Amino acid sequence: MAIVSKAHRRPEDPLEYLRCSTVLAYPRGHTIYDYERPPANLHLVIDGYVKICRMSEGRKPVVLDIYQAEDFFGESAFLGAAQRPETAVALEDTKVMVWSVEEIEEIAIKHPQLGIALLQLIVRRSAEYVSRIESFAVDNIARRLARALIRFSERNRNEAGAPSEHLVAFTHELLSQYVGTSREIVTQCMNQFRRAGYLSYSRRGIVLHGAELRTWLATGGDFAGEKPARPRNNGRLISSGMGA
Amino acid sequence: MAIVSKAHRRPEDPLEYLRCSTVLAYPRGHTIYDYERPPANLHLVIDGYVKICRMSEGRKPVVLDIYQAEDFFGESAFLGAAQRPETAVALEDTKVMVWSVEEIEEIAIKHPQLGIALLQLIVRRSAEYVSRIESFAVDNIARRLARALIRFSERNRNEAGAPSEHLVAFTHELLSQYVGTSREIVTQCMNQFRRAGYLSYSRRGIVLHGAELRTWLATGGDFAGEKPARPRNNGRLISSGMGA
Repeated sequence: MAIVSKAHRRPEDPLEYLRCSTVLAYPRGHTIYDYERPPANLHLVIDGYVKICRMSEGRKPVVLDIYQAEDFFGESAFLGAAQRPETAVALEDTKVMVWSVEEIEEIAIKHPQLGIALLQLIVRRSAEYVSRIESFAVDNIARRLARALIRFSERNRNEAGAPSEHLVAFTHELLSQYVGTSREIVTQCMNQFRRAGYLSYSRRGIVLHGAELRTWLATGGDFAGEKPARPRNNGRLISSGMGA
Repeated sequence: MAIVSKAHRRPEDPLEYLRCSTVLAYPRGHTIYDYERPPANLHLVIDGYVKICRMSEGRKPVVLDIYQAEDFFGESAFLGAAQRPETAVALEDTKVMVWSVEEIEEIAIKHPQLGIALLQLIVRRSAEYVSRIESFAVDNIARRLARALIRFSERNRNEAGAPSEHLVAFTHELLSQYVGTSREIVTQCMNQFRRAGYLSYSRRGIVLHGAELRTWLATGGDFAGEKPARPRNNGRLISSGMGA
C-alpha cells in the first residue's frame, strides 16, 4: 500500500453538484446566524463580505475569518445543535445562496462526489486554522499581523489571478480581533509597516506591498534599529506569545 | 426555508461504512508521516498515542493534537500534495489501521453516507481548532493550559463514560508545545494548579481534579493573592497574549 502521495489531487468543486438555490440579502451589520440561531444551511457568498466570529460571554470577540464572493460558510450546520457558538455578520450589504443540510445530503446520495468536494473544502479550511494556531504559538504580533495581511491579499486575487494589493473592508479593529490584540497595537504595527514601505493607504483602504512584506517575514520579521511597539511589555519571550 | 436548526443531528460513524483494513505497527518515537512523506491514507488509531505537530524550519514545534484509540487522523491525505507540512509521530508503541484515499472514495460512491460521516468528523475537528484559536487570542497561558488539560481529560473517558482523571503520556514538554510556551512556564503553572488542589501526580502521570479546575476557569481563572509566574513580563495585557 502506498504511504506516500506524490500526486497533487485534483480538488473537487462543490458547485458542480449544487443547483442554484434561494438567495438571501442581508444589509450591512446584520447578523446572519449566531449562538441562539445556529445555521441550518450551508451558505455561499454571492456578493459582499461576511465576518465569522466567536463571541463568548464576557470575552473579547475573536474574528475567525472574512468570507467573500465564492466562499462557503456555515459548515457547522452539519453538526446541528451540537455546534459551538459562532456568529456570522454581514460586513457590507451582502447576498448569500443557501442550501439546507437535508438538501445537501439528498444531493450527496445521488452525487457522492459532492460529499468528497465538501470534505476537501473543510480539510483545507482546517489546515488554515492549523497555520493560524502555529502563528499564535510561535509568532509575535507584528508577524501574526503580517501573515494575516498576506493571507487576505492572497485570497483576494485580482482579475489576472495575482494576489490583490487592495484590502477592502479591513479596519484596524477587525484586524485586531483576528490577530488577538488591541486596536491600538495593530495601529502601531501598521504604522511601522507603512514607514518600512510594506503597505500604504488609499481611499479604498489598505494597499499591501506583499513582496516586501513577505521578504521581511522570510528574513526574520523584526524591526531592527526601531523597537517594535510593546506597551507594558519588556521581553521578547512574552512578545512571542510565550508569557504566562 | 428553516434558518434555525433545533435538532441535535445524529452524528454518522465512518466505521459503519469502512471495512477492516491493513494494520500498521509503529514503535515509540517513529515518524508515521511528515512533510517529505505526506499521508496518502486516512489513519485510525487502534492502540497507542499519536502526536500531530507542525515542524516549520527554524521555528519551535507546535503540537496540534494527540490522538488515541478510535481517533482518525491524516485527513490531509484528501488534499494530496497540496497539503501543508504536518508530522505524525507515535508517542508510544502504536497500531493504526489505514485506508487509502482512493479506497475511501470508492466506498463513498457506494455508500454516500461515508462522505457525510467524514465531513461531520472534520467539521467537529475544525470547531475544536476554532476553540483553540479563541483561547490563544483571549486567554493567558494558565487558562490555556487549564483548557488543554480539561479537553484531554474529556476526550479520554473511563469505562463509565466519565472524563478520565488520569492523563497518561502528557509531559510538561508536550503540554508546552500544545499551549505555545516554554516547558519552564508550564511547570510553574502546573505547580500552581497542584498547590491549589486542581491536580496531583501519580506514578501513571497527571491526575486531574477536573471539577475544581473547571470552577477556577468559570470564576475568572486567576491566582488571587499569589501572582502567577510571569518571568520577564509585567502586564496583564501581555500575559493574555495581547502584546506586540
